[in-house]
Amino acid sequence: MPESKVVAVEELASSEAKWVKLKKCRYQDPTGKERLWEFAERPTRSSSGIDAVAILALLRSETGKFPPSTIIIEQFRAPVDRYVVELPAGLISEGETPEETAIRELEEETGFKASGVVQTSPLLVCDPGMTNANMKLVTVDVPFPENLEMPEQKLDPGEFIQARIVEIAKLRAELKEYERKGFVIDARLDHFASGFELAEKLRESKM
Amino acid sequence: MPESKVVAVEELASSEAKWVKLKKCRYQDPTGKERLWEFAERPTRSSSGIDAVAILALLRSETGKFPPSTIIIEQFRAPVDRYVVELPAGLISEGETPEETAIRELEEETGFKASGVVQTSPLLVCDPGMTNANMKLVTVDVPFPENLEMPEQKLDPGEFIQARIVEIAKLRAELKEYERKGFVIDARLDHFASGFELAEKLRESKM
Repeated sequence: MPESKVVAVEELASSEAKWVKLKKCRYQDPTGKERLWEFAERPTRSSSGIDAVAILALLRSETGKFPPSTIIIEQFRAPVDRYVVELPAGLISEGETPEETAIRELEEETGFKASGVVQTSPLLVCDPGMTNANMKLVTVDVPFPENLEMPEQKLDPGEFIQARIVEIAKLRAELKEYERKGFVIDARLDHFASGFELAEKLRESKM
Repeated sequence: MPESKVVAVEELASSEAKWVKLKKCRYQDPTGKERLWEFAERPTRSSSGIDAVAILALLRSETGKFPPSTIIIEQFRAPVDRYVVELPAGLISEGETPEETAIRELEEETGFKASGVVQTSPLLVCDPGMTNANMKLVTVDVPFPENLEMPEQKLDPGEFIQARIVEIAKLRAELKEYERKGFVIDARLDHFASGFELAEKLRESKM
């Protein structure tokens, strides 16, 4: 199958944009002085006040035959014209809780059905110097009885997402291998792997 | 000192924007069909091809008197009209390497001088469904001989940043406390703390 690629990029007038808008704000700094800041925002935020969730699926072997694993996705992202490795994620639909979105999107993008929610992060902002985008990270439990196999995805038309199971302890090494193959890595997924790696290093070295 | 706050927000025409632009691209999906995607981009990217770095400072006690610690910052972010807890970070200036930016920005925002670079992440994308923003995470070594004290910052005029030392093993608890106090958390910092926490949990429970 041929790969996705960007064929043309052009300026977009804010008035014609549907999915992202440009804003300018005036704010008061701590001295009382007024300053300006430009940023982008999604006009699609639901009444929950939260744009999106990312999903950390804990694939847990009930027989103990498999090490703790999670699911990452590979997806072409037009804004960066590259294939990106990310956690499964999705925009929150009107009326959904973040946890409902997490369970729905995990099943759509990977086929896995979570048995429950382990924890939900505080409100997070994605790139707060540039956009108002926000999200929560929802950790879900996905126990499996015997063998670990990829179920069938339930993608929307026009969605092309490759889901992959990775052993959590090998995530850092997997991301290095992705870099070597020309993928870029989502910053949040990389920071997750960096935190995991640092905990392991501190334990070994007693830094 | 009074707090910062947004006093007005208005639509911004892309032609008038200096710091963030709107773009529309046409891309080919894997079936050969052409699709459209709207996104925001920074027009300020240096010739390095990388917008920014975040800095994970490893504060390391040479006497072993203090546990491994790092530095986080509190900063008002106008796009979200909230105080955000983040890793130190900054835009890469023309001619700088990511590592040079990391060492410079760490000293400006926190006063700490790194003794060297431990590792640099692959190229990361911040929110690749919405923007083309990219970055690297640079881990730096900050050994200190006796006591751990906050040095004086070297902020630019108009920068109001509070730097704080936190014990790495207590980062997750600190972020929960920040949430309780009304801060929002940068998604990358939260994912780092989540990865660290999961490594500790897996070690304890042998999930």
